Amino acid sequence: MDYFHRIGALRRKLTRAGLSGLVVTNSPDLRYLCGFTGSNAALAVTRRTARLFTDSRFTIQAAEEVQAAQVQIVSGSPTVMAVEWLAAQPGVDFAGFDPAVTTVAELARWKDALPARLRRNFLAALPAPFVEPLRMVKDKDELALMIEAALLGCKLFEHILGFIRSGLREIDVAAELEHEARLGGAEGMSFETIVASGVRSAMPHALATTTRLPRRGFLTLDFGVILKGYCSDMTRTVYLGKPKRKEWDTYQTVLEAQEAGVAAVAAGVTCGEVDEAARGVLRREGLAEAFTHSTGHGVGLEIHESPRVGTGQATKLQSGMVVTIEPGIYLAGQYGIRIEDMVVVTPTGGQVLTPAPKALIEL
Amino acid sequence: MDYFHRIGALRRKLTRAGLSGLVVTNSPDLRYLCGFTGSNAALAVTRRTARLFTDSRFTIQAAEEVQAAQVQIVSGSPTVMAVEWLAAQPGVDFAGFDPAVTTVAELARWKDALPARLRRNFLAALPAPFVEPLRMVKDKDELALMIEAALLGCKLFEHILGFIRSGLREIDVAAELEHEARLGGAEGMSFETIVASGVRSAMPHALATTTRLPRRGFLTLDFGVILKGYCSDMTRTVYLGKPKRKEWDTYQTVLEAQEAGVAAVAAGVTCGEVDEAARGVLRREGLAEAFTHSTGHGVGLEIHESPRVGTGQATKLQSGMVVTIEPGIYLAGQYGIRIEDMVVVTPTGGQVLTPAPKALIEL
Repeated sequence: MDYFHRIGALRRKLTRAGLSGLVVTNSPDLRYLCGFTGSNAALAVTRRTARLFTDSRFTIQAAEEVQAAQVQIVSGSPTVMAVEWLAAQPGVDFAGFDPAVTTVAELARWKDALPARLRRNFLAALPAPFVEPLRMVKDKDELALMIEAALLGCKLFEHILGFIRSGLREIDVAAELEHEARLGGAEGMSFETIVASGVRSAMPHALATTTRLPRRGFLTLDFGVILKGYCSDMTRTVYLGKPKRKEWDTYQTVLEAQEAGVAAVAAGVTCGEVDEAARGVLRREGLAEAFTHSTGHGVGLEIHESPRVGTGQATKLQSGMVVTIEPGIYLAGQYGIRIEDMVVVTPTGGQVLTPAPKALIEL
Repeated sequence: MDYFHRIGALRRKLTRAGLSGLVVTNSPDLRYLCGFTGSNAALAVTRRTARLFTDSRFTIQAAEEVQAAQVQIVSGSPTVMAVEWLAAQPGVDFAGFDPAVTTVAELARWKDALPARLRRNFLAALPAPFVEPLRMVKDKDELALMIEAALLGCKLFEHILGFIRSGLREIDVAAELEHEARLGGAEGMSFETIVASGVRSAMPHALATTTRLPRRGFLTLDFGVILKGYCSDMTRTVYLGKPKRKEWDTYQTVLEAQEAGVAAVAAGVTCGEVDEAARGVLRREGLAEAFTHSTGHGVGLEIHESPRVGTGQATKLQSGMVVTIEPGIYLAGQYGIRIEDMVVVTPTGGQVLTPAPKALIEL
C-alpha cells in the first residue's frame, strides 16, 4: 500500500481546503492513511507532516505497521495528545475534525486541553467527511485485495451449496461458512452472517439462529469476509425444494431488478440513477413497497462506506469505486428474496466482482 | 428478561436526576432496556412512557423483540424523530443524552430539528453515562446467560488443546475455535480472536495471522463468544515444547498476579484495589513496566463495559458485577504471557466463571 501517496493526497486536500491541521480518529481512516490497525489512536496531520499517537499496548505493532507518519506512544488520551500537538505546531491555526465520528464528550475533552485563547476557534468541525471521500476510489493495491476477498466469498458460496440440507440449523450453515472463510485466510467476517430461512427471509437483517432449515422455502445467505482489512459482501437466495410458480416469478423479478442495477453502473452516472434502475423494475411489478432499503453501498475497509446507492443520491460514480447492488423484497409472514453483487466501476462500465450463479438454485 | 423492570428502574433514575426525558441511542443500551437488537434505532424515555423509533427494515423484528416500549417505524432518522417526539410530550422540559455516544454531527441534526425556542436548552448533555451504570450489576437472567457463555469458552479451550500442534497457522487455530463456538450455539465471537505465538505473544492484541506455530514458545489464546447477546472473555497462555526455567518462572509470577487479582474481588472493594493486588505482584518481581494495560474490565452485552479495573479506579464492586482479571506481561522480541478469567462478584467474594486450568500447560 502506498501510504506516502495517500498522506500526500490528504495534505494537498488540506491545502486546497485552506486548512493547516487535521485530527483523524476514525479507525478505518487511520489504517488507510498510515497502515495502523490497532485501536485507541489518532493521527495529527499538518501540511508538512503526520504523527500517529497511540498507547503502549501498541508500541510494537505501531513500529511494525505505521508508514508515512511518525509514531508517538502516549500514556494519556491519544486524541487529546494529537490535538495538543497540533496546537503547538508553528503555522497551524485551525485543526479540522470530522463531527460525524467525534463524540460530544471527546470534543469537550479536546477543548479543555487547549490553552484558553485557542478554546473557541482552534477546532473546526468540517462540513463533510474529509478522509472517507479519498477512500471511495480504490487504488490498484486495494482492488487486488478486494477482488481476492470477493472471490473468496464466491468460493464459500459454492462450498456451502454442497453443505445445505433441510433440517440443519441456520447456525450450522453459518458455522460452516465461517470456518471455510477462516481456512481460506479471512481475518474474520465483515458482518454477522445472515442465514434466513423460510418466513425469516422476510427480515432483511435476520441473523443465523437455531431455526432448522425447512423442507420447502427460500433461504437467504448474506455474508462477507475480511481479507487484509478489506471487506467482501454478497447475497444469494436459494430455494429448498421446488418453488411455487408465484415464488419463482417473484425471484425472476428481483433478479431482473438486480441485473438492471448492475447494468446501470458506469462512471459519471449518479448513485440515484443506479438505485432507480433497480427500483423501477420492482415498482413496475407492484413490489416497490416490499423493497424497504437502498439498492447498495460502497464497500472497502468498512462494510458500509461512501457512496450510498439510494433514492436521489447525487454522488457520481467514478472509476475505481466499489459498490454493492442488492435489491430485495420482503413479504412479512411469507418470504424474502435478495440478490447482491459487489461491482467495481471501470472506464467501460460496471464489472461484477462476485460472479457466483444468480439463476434460482433449487436444493 | 424483565424489560419492564429495567425501564422502570430507568424511569426512577430519571425522576431522581430531575430529568423529564432521555434519548437513548447506544445499541447495547437499547437491547438492555427493551430487547431490540437491530441497528438504526433510538429509544425516547419519559417518566411515564418509552417509545422505540427505527426504520422499516426492522418492522417485523421490532414487533417480535421489543417489550416495555411502544414501537414507531419512521422513514427519516430515528434519533431525530425520538428527539422531536420528546419535545412534543407534555411535561418534558429537557431531554438528556449521553455525550460519550452522541456525535457532534448528530447533536447538530437534533438541534436543527427542534423549534427555535427549544434549540438552546432542550438537549442536556448528561455528566456521566445514564444507562450503562444500570447494566453493571447483572440480574439473574443475565448471569445465567453469562455463566453459559463463559462455560462455552472453557469447553472451547479444552477442545483447542487437542487441536494445537507446531506447524499449524495461527488462523487454523482461530478457525477451529470459532467453528466449535458456532456449533456450540454462539452467535459469533465477542471480539477478533487473538492467537499469538512465539515473539508475537509480546503484542497484547495480536490477531491470528498465517504465522505458523513454533516448535517451542508461548502461545496466547484470548477469545470470547456471544451467546444470546452476552459476551464471554478468557485468556490462557500455553507452551509449545518445554519452557526454559526463566520462562516457567515468569509464567508463575503472572499466574500469582492473576490469582491475587481474583482473590481481591469482593463487594465493597474498589476497582483500583483489585488492580493493585495483581499489579503489586508483578512490581515486586520487577515486571511492572512489562504490564502495559489495566487488570480488567466489566463485561456483559459489550465486551468492554463499566467498571474499568485499572490503577486508581474508585468504583466499588457490587454483588452481581462481572469483571475480567487479566494481568499480562509483554517482553518485546521475546514473548508475552496473559491469563484471564471472568469473575462475578457475590456477597461472599469473587467467583470465577471460567474454571479452565491455569497451571502452565506444555503441548
